[in-house]
Amino acid sequence: MNQHEALHEHIGLEPPHLSRTSTLLHTPQASRHLVYIMLLQPNLTLPSVRGRIPFAKSNLDEYSPSEFEAFDVLRPRGPPDEETQAASLSVLSVDMRVTENKEDHNTHKYVSSNLIVRRNKEFTIIIQFNRDFNEQQDNVELEFMIGSSPDENRGTYIILPIGKEKPEVRWKSRVVETQGNYVTVGVTPDASCIIGRFLIFVVVVNDLGKRRTTRNTETDVYVLFNPWDPADEVYIPSKTDRQEYVMNDVGTIYIGEFNYFTPRSWNFGQFEQEVLDACIFVLDSGKVPLVYRGGALEIVRQASALMNANDDYGVLVGNWSDDYSEGTAPTAWTGSPEILLKYANEGGEPVRFAQCWVFAGVLNTFMRCLGIPTRVITNFNSAHDNMGKLNTDIVLDEMGRLDRSRTKDSVWNFHCWNEVYMKRPDLPEKFSGWQVIDSTPQETSDGLSRCGPTSVSAIKEGELSYPFDARFVYSEVNSDVIYHRSDKQGKTKVIYVDTAYAGKLILTKKTGSSDHEDITSTYKYPEKTVKEREAWQNAERSGMPTRDYLPQPEAGVTIELQTDTVNMGDDFKLTLNINNQTNQTCTINATITGCVAFYTGVTSATFKIENQAATVEASKTESLTVDVNAKEYTPYLKEKGNLLFVVYGHIEETDMSLTTMKVVTLQPPKLTLTMTGTPQVGKVLMISVDFQNPFNFILQNVQLRLDGPGLIPIKIKSYSQILPGGSVKYKMSMIPRTPGKKVLMASLDCPLLRQVTSQLEIEIFEAE
Amino acid sequence: MNQHEALHEHIGLEPPHLSRTSTLLHTPQASRHLVYIMLLQPNLTLPSVRGRIPFAKSNLDEYSPSEFEAFDVLRPRGPPDEETQAASLSVLSVDMRVTENKEDHNTHKYVSSNLIVRRNKEFTIIIQFNRDFNEQQDNVELEFMIGSSPDENRGTYIILPIGKEKPEVRWKSRVVETQGNYVTVGVTPDASCIIGRFLIFVVVVNDLGKRRTTRNTETDVYVLFNPWDPADEVYIPSKTDRQEYVMNDVGTIYIGEFNYFTPRSWNFGQFEQEVLDACIFVLDSGKVPLVYRGGALEIVRQASALMNANDDYGVLVGNWSDDYSEGTAPTAWTGSPEILLKYANEGGEPVRFAQCWVFAGVLNTFMRCLGIPTRVITNFNSAHDNMGKLNTDIVLDEMGRLDRSRTKDSVWNFHCWNEVYMKRPDLPEKFSGWQVIDSTPQETSDGLSRCGPTSVSAIKEGELSYPFDARFVYSEVNSDVIYHRSDKQGKTKVIYVDTAYAGKLILTKKTGSSDHEDITSTYKYPEKTVKEREAWQNAERSGMPTRDYLPQPEAGVTIELQTDTVNMGDDFKLTLNINNQTNQTCTINATITGCVAFYTGVTSATFKIENQAATVEASKTESLTVDVNAKEYTPYLKEKGNLLFVVYGHIEETDMSLTTMKVVTLQPPKLTLTMTGTPQVGKVLMISVDFQNPFNFILQNVQLRLDGPGLIPIKIKSYSQILPGGSVKYKMSMIPRTPGKKVLMASLDCPLLRQVTSQLEIEIFEAE
Repeated sequence: MNQHEALHEHIGLEPPHLSRTSTLLHTPQASRHLVYIMLLQPNLTLPSVRGRIPFAKSNLDEYSPSEFEAFDVLRPRGPPDEETQAASLSVLSVDMRVTENKEDHNTHKYVSSNLIVRRNKEFTIIIQFNRDFNEQQDNVELEFMIGSSPDENRGTYIILPIGKEKPEVRWKSRVVETQGNYVTVGVTPDASCIIGRFLIFVVVVNDLGKRRTTRNTETDVYVLFNPWDPADEVYIPSKTDRQEYVMNDVGTIYIGEFNYFTPRSWNFGQFEQEVLDACIFVLDSGKVPLVYRGGALEIVRQASALMNANDDYGVLVGNWSDDYSEGTAPTAWTGSPEILLKYANEGGEPVRFAQCWVFAGVLNTFMRCLGIPTRVITNFNSAHDNMGKLNTDIVLDEMGRLDRSRTKDSVWNFHCWNEVYMKRPDLPEKFSGWQVIDSTPQETSDGLSRCGPTSVSAIKEGELSYPFDARFVYSEVNSDVIYHRSDKQGKTKVIYVDTAYAGKLILTKKTGSSDHEDITSTYKYPEKTVKEREAWQNAERSGMPTRDYLPQPEAGVTIELQTDTVNMGDDFKLTLNINNQTNQTCTINATITGCVAFYTGVTSATFKIENQAATVEASKTESLTVDVNAKEYTPYLKEKGNLLFVVYGHIEETDMSLTTMKVVTLQPPKLTLTMTGTPQVGKVLMISVDFQNPFNFILQNVQLRLDGPGLIPIKIKSYSQILPGGSVKYKMSMIPRTPGKKVLMASLDCPLLRQVTSQLEIEIFEAE
Repeated sequence: MNQHEALHEHIGLEPPHLSRTSTLLHTPQASRHLVYIMLLQPNLTLPSVRGRIPFAKSNLDEYSPSEFEAFDVLRPRGPPDEETQAASLSVLSVDMRVTENKEDHNTHKYVSSNLIVRRNKEFTIIIQFNRDFNEQQDNVELEFMIGSSPDENRGTYIILPIGKEKPEVRWKSRVVETQGNYVTVGVTPDASCIIGRFLIFVVVVNDLGKRRTTRNTETDVYVLFNPWDPADEVYIPSKTDRQEYVMNDVGTIYIGEFNYFTPRSWNFGQFEQEVLDACIFVLDSGKVPLVYRGGALEIVRQASALMNANDDYGVLVGNWSDDYSEGTAPTAWTGSPEILLKYANEGGEPVRFAQCWVFAGVLNTFMRCLGIPTRVITNFNSAHDNMGKLNTDIVLDEMGRLDRSRTKDSVWNFHCWNEVYMKRPDLPEKFSGWQVIDSTPQETSDGLSRCGPTSVSAIKEGELSYPFDARFVYSEVNSDVIYHRSDKQGKTKVIYVDTAYAGKLILTKKTGSSDHEDITSTYKYPEKTVKEREAWQNAERSGMPTRDYLPQPEAGVTIELQTDTVNMGDDFKLTLNINNQTNQTCTINATITGCVAFYTGVTSATFKIENQAATVEASKTESLTVDVNAKEYTPYLKEKGNLLFVVYGHIEETDMSLTTMKVVTLQPPKLTLTMTGTPQVGKVLMISVDFQNPFNFILQNVQLRLDGPGLIPIKIKSYSQILPGGSVKYKMSMIPRTPGKKVLMASLDCPLLRQVTSQLEIEIFEAE
């Protein structure tokens, strides 16, 4: 529809092509309508005539209000003449007091020249007029607008009269001080207002109409969540918690296996230049309606979907194949800003590639950047990919060897997700607090690639009826591992159930420390306690499948696998301890299957099958030793730095079966970071990165990444090959600009070797 | 990876390009591995080596098992020689007893030559062997497979030994009768098994291996939900209910406005040829994992997303514009089979176009076809498009006229959704029963285009913490309409709140009758009762916004708009009744705004603004009359057959404001269906469709659709134009083939005239 038609449509006239058959144009009503539109809507674009109302879903799209809106139809339309203008009040400048306000609002760390504030806390701006401001007579308004169709009823258009109370308004304003033609105005966005970038206009109202200040991007203000304020949904009481979960821009993500886990530093970088804009771009790109952007629940749930590219062109493409040649290997990244900025700069093209810790790292940045307290969690032995079932099925063949082709479930060595701290206004109060969200596309959460928020305390109690995805998370930490064995004709039978394997250890970084914190007890009661049984009963009442395979008969004999830490490329010994708690001697025939495995527990090759037997006297423990030679497993390793061992034991005397499983995460060779010089602001500091190839094969297409938030911008070096025994040394100098604790992190990555990372904490002293 | 590499990968040997540096090939372990794979996995395709396990998400993709699987490694691999084969048992034929089983399983109405059964009910098949079957000695199995990677632990591969108990198996089998070489086997799929199309194989097992029957599509069996069985999640106790909500293939959808609603017949056609396959195709196209297809909750939630093309290339494209030239207008369809078959035949290309009743009609077909009891619901005055808010905001200007550009909410005259009847194993028991699902893309339900299932009883009680989308549905039926009025400077103020407007009337078709049933009381307690207030309080505790604009001061005066039914193109009178309940005379100045509106409440043009005044004595009622001329509104009508009137009343004496709003749905001209002849099986019946254009404009590009399930296949006739006063007569003859009650339905549709439909019930008698 062209504008001419639109005008007719709006004022109730017939479109031109019909008007010849009608007389409506000349009725008194029609001319009154004409007045009406001039009076009220002098410059607004007309709404679409479609039968559905369009909704603003972009913060970056802007509305451009006219600089002058006339009121009075009796006077000529258009801007008033020169004389009238001279007599009237006008705005010379607006000072956003960026530095002072940001210090007050805990937003000083954001690298941005714009004002960034938090909800429900006052910020002050100074307006300079052309003459003294008279609070009694002058009629001035502050306007805040977000998105392309600002609307008072939707919280996307806020009008605050300066010096006058406005009824029914959520944002507050007051005149703090008037000094001649300078007026200091205090503005408090309400505790549940939309977060994002708002445009500000100062409007002088007189009898003729409204005159706005010119659009000026420098006065744009970002409003964020406020974890400091008890009225905000994301309030978190402890100062230490806020410092860690909102303000800390470097963190640790735990990976590896539960008894030898590895800390991996991650640059969250939520305050880095343009990261906040990139986060808003993510919401825009995900078409999250502006009216939803005031609610933590909505933001958090949407964000868990938007971090992955499944369904919705989100930030990251998940990839668990061996082949990352079309992008960056998940193991190579050192932090989030590189990823978020790439996504935004390439107009929303999903970034390649991620695995769970990358998804969790970027989601953490996103949340902290918007002001929602968040942490990265690692669940060791995470039950996964077992769609719609509570249990994980491991199938052994007739001989007790792992049957890889029939074992279609896997337990991930570790899986990372996030917890956000927030109120759950939709749920009974006890479910507020930490909530699980997970953006790794698992294909299984409510049919879509997102998960949560789900209350951690609800998981612990087994109260799984409440949204979102509680049953899925519950099963990740509580799944039973069921071992089946097939007979000669391929028919399977349950031989053993391990109820303690999944959710073995749940970690996060400790607040104010570089150590870890064990939070397993926030997710589950200890095994075999009354409370644990009650939680299971609650879970079954909430629709979890009944564990009809329990209880299993007790063999009275237990088996357990042990190793020390194993360096990649080393020979090692695996010990199988057999503990006979019965009062009879027992003879055990054990079959040990060794496979190379992804961190997802998916096996890629069987490299060892060994049979051993032991006779264990009553109430005694015996050990069997399995020798594992590097040359057995190295040919299949590639990036899969894990070995999975499954033991099947058959007790001759009782014809009973025992099973156990263990992952050995091979420790990759060291990447060494060394610093020389005095770590002081303004002084030169030398950094050296050293790596030696300990293998007897060539490492090709090696990428070295160096990242030091607050020290250096990210640096990527490529090496076409590192020969066997060969080494790489990279040196760089830097001059720190700000004092405080910094972390330098490095990763070395190539198709045959992954997860080689290192970090160095550096305390930079003040300049002398 | 090629097959040679795959083999090496699987058995733990090095891939060829590495083997020169290793001696592993010659170790005793290695040769034992070689035995292992031949023994156990003679013909299975090896799983992918990717780090994530792939999941079958298609029923139509098939797995092709080999016809022979060898067991014994000591004997030569491959099929046994001729002599051995001759001595052994083999299968000559399998009789699915389609007619008898379908009669027993209430699936006889499906037009399909395949067997269709319901869960947890036995069906019997007859296997013919080459010689007498010996239950003690012969080892025969029945295999059921679904999807491309059948797996016993996932319920996608069921192995049933014939004549032997199998432990831990969910499906049951038994030998019903043995007569020489004919064996009748009874099979009972378990009550929660996956629904869809299963392949059947009969397997003869002997010492050498397994021999399967050849793949035969004629023995494929479809397993459906079973509303007849108390063990099934979708059990519905009443026979009348099952007859209506599962077996009835024609229904009525109510449209229009609440005080003059119109029944519109709809051909659900769930039993029509290929419709069941199309429904399975929809699940495949939506990539619903097979393992989820046994749960009503999952099927139902996915289906609500899959009916619309938003997010996921679902069945129908929603369109609320005036322009349907790229497809079929939503108003033109007469039923679901045409749509579902078009979708399936075009490989999953979304069908254009739909509005709410079309989405609801097709979703109803989908559910009934799979065996889930379902009905179509119409909510009159459905609050919509009011994202994230409980209320609907109507903005009036300074003069009390509707301000269309600032009114961004709308109340739909009616909105259709579905209810499914099912258990909610995930929720407390009281929330089982009817559940709301809605597939009209509203862009607002949990960020995606789907809605539900949400328990109707939870909506009634205001218990909105439980999944899915309860708050959204609650607000559709309970939203408050808030009237705002702006002052000269554009600042708005709440002037009136109508708490009774939304969810005025909720209807569905009555069981076993062509009449409607009012089910409003299943969604809400009566206005202003204690129970209603309690439900509101529950709702606020579940996160609904507080209604801080209540209570509003009472004016003591009420206003109400009334009309009779209005035919499209007629002049009519609108009566404004003013009831003064105070003990003082009051003077009311009323402003009436008349707009043309979509059924979604979105207005497209203001055609009338009228001011009137009345003086009403204490305790009296006065009426004002507004004359509405056809020539005022017809120029803007097009397909928008509704007029929206908003009244603003100002009481001079008390300075209080009153507001009311009313939709007048214009009744379109009649489409007449007449039958001549005797409605008897085998006899000729004449049908005539008549329509006359009552308008003074030409109707162009007219489409006439005639649909008569069980009588005629769908028929579409086009007319390039119908002149003013001109008429169209279409005659056809048919010969009914089956007796019983049939419905013939017709729609006439063109860009200037929509929603012209008609239906004729015909009772076909048995042949003499």
